[in-house]
Amino acid sequence: MRAARHEVAARYGIADIGVHIPARRVPTTPLAPALGVPTETLQRRIGFESLARKADGDETSDLAFNAVQDLLRRHPLDPADIGCLVVVTQNPDGTGIPQVSALLHGRLGWPTNIPAFDLALGCSGYVYGLAVVSSFLAMQNGKAGILVTADPYSKIVDPGDRATALLFGDGASATLIERNGPWRLGNFDFGTAGTHAQLLHTDARRRLRMDGQAVARFCLREIPRSIERTLVRNGLTVADVDRFVLHQGSRCIVEDIAKAIGAEAKTPFVAQRLGNTASSSVPIALRDMVGETNGAQTVLLSTFGIGMSWATVVIEKDER
Amino acid sequence: MRAARHEVAARYGIADIGVHIPARRVPTTPLAPALGVPTETLQRRIGFESLARKADGDETSDLAFNAVQDLLRRHPLDPADIGCLVVVTQNPDGTGIPQVSALLHGRLGWPTNIPAFDLALGCSGYVYGLAVVSSFLAMQNGKAGILVTADPYSKIVDPGDRATALLFGDGASATLIERNGPWRLGNFDFGTAGTHAQLLHTDARRRLRMDGQAVARFCLREIPRSIERTLVRNGLTVADVDRFVLHQGSRCIVEDIAKAIGAEAKTPFVAQRLGNTASSSVPIALRDMVGETNGAQTVLLSTFGIGMSWATVVIEKDER
Repeated sequence: MRAARHEVAARYGIADIGVHIPARRVPTTPLAPALGVPTETLQRRIGFESLARKADGDETSDLAFNAVQDLLRRHPLDPADIGCLVVVTQNPDGTGIPQVSALLHGRLGWPTNIPAFDLALGCSGYVYGLAVVSSFLAMQNGKAGILVTADPYSKIVDPGDRATALLFGDGASATLIERNGPWRLGNFDFGTAGTHAQLLHTDARRRLRMDGQAVARFCLREIPRSIERTLVRNGLTVADVDRFVLHQGSRCIVEDIAKAIGAEAKTPFVAQRLGNTASSSVPIALRDMVGETNGAQTVLLSTFGIGMSWATVVIEKDER
Repeated sequence: MRAARHEVAARYGIADIGVHIPARRVPTTPLAPALGVPTETLQRRIGFESLARKADGDETSDLAFNAVQDLLRRHPLDPADIGCLVVVTQNPDGTGIPQVSALLHGRLGWPTNIPAFDLALGCSGYVYGLAVVSSFLAMQNGKAGILVTADPYSKIVDPGDRATALLFGDGASATLIERNGPWRLGNFDFGTAGTHAQLLHTDARRRLRMDGQAVARFCLREIPRSIERTLVRNGLTVADVDRFVLHQGSRCIVEDIAKAIGAEAKTPFVAQRLGNTASSSVPIALRDMVGETNGAQTVLLSTFGIGMSWATVVIEKDER
């Protein structure tokens, strides 16, 4: 028995996902000793063997462009059908102005009637973006929208900071959301705890600072609750969900949340060779699933991070 | 004869607007000679007698908080009714992370179930924000949302730059958008010309650089067309509109667009003592109208700027 879907969201779904993962990898094992991080912590808690790292000259809009090109190779599109272009980032090109979505729009050479804007969210941004793009399209009765995530943390990580230097990888994604797209969006759960905003912030030199233990505690308390609310809102139980795709913040956060909800076997940690790619971690993990013809039919996505901010949704494969 | 409204947007409308306008004013006349700007250019083309300037210690989230407090004084709200909190800014607190919406959420002490995010757009951001907030609410069947604009350009203007030093003022707004709110949103027109993104950008030191003449030419070409498309989409002519509220970029851009559309008497330039407050210019101009019981019934809003990016909409007073 499924709960009623909000009509608007149920008409839109994920049709395909393009990604850009830089070829360059930074192995973490050689870095850990100088940072005072024990090997066991690196392997069991952090879980990233290597971190994807963008080429030195690449800007945020380059990563975004590459992800869109990958999407367009998989799924050719007529730009006339595109009802919006949204980029999730908190690390735009240069010193921040203009917005990445405009630079991307210019580089793609798309028509001027396409609305484009950036959504400034961190690791929670992908699921927020799914909501914003699908609702924006619904209001315009749009056919298709593109949600890009491109937030290269290598720009802001202090390589000498043990709390963050072994965590973040660079990557980007481009998700095609279409009217009647096959992976229909269900009901969402959203949350914000601005009282905890200082747990993740940039300092005066724009270096990322994180209270890692407090962030982990916060997520382990709030995210299982968000998942539970989302299941209830969609008339589902843990047993009904084929796969839980969580933000790949670290091995331990994925595994600890999976344990808390009783879904360890269905909650993959898949970012061992990438690192935490911020708002790109869920779409990168999801990309292979979306392309499958068999396999998972009901997938829960949960993203969480800077703010503190979180968002959870269920997507279901519509076989019609 | 009115064109059909998209159902979603027509259910939502602007209920009230709070503003924050700093008390401090920087007169422009004494500054013009050293910048090589003739008095006639200052008065006839730029049009700003003084620029509102935030207190030195005030951050973006302080301006945003003050605007929300002003809104709550005019229009008390139960936080349980708030379905989203969106902040339009490209100049967030500090070095940019966390997002302003999270800081604002924390300072307001609101419940954790409120979705909050920043929209990174410049002077075009208010009308985009109306679309994003109303469509987001519609998808969640939300009762009310708050759209904040807070983008203090004094942070990034080079006081020695004649192209920008006499233009920008600081201000903030907080718009309450409600289901069945009295100023119903009509159909929108959106546009992006990313090929022109470099006309307004920040340099390596994060100082704003603008090709003022090219920006003015661009807007004078594109915005009358956007207004025309918006009128057609809403089944209206210029004669049906009581007031055209354009982004208050400068006296000449407002007057030149008004002339191009044949609506000079109905298109006020009202920012003489404020300056161009970026995404806050239209809500500040609109605030008094929204509070009126008589007067304008059909108002067109058009915002445009960095990207280049623009958005236009009609709002109509629902007297029921």
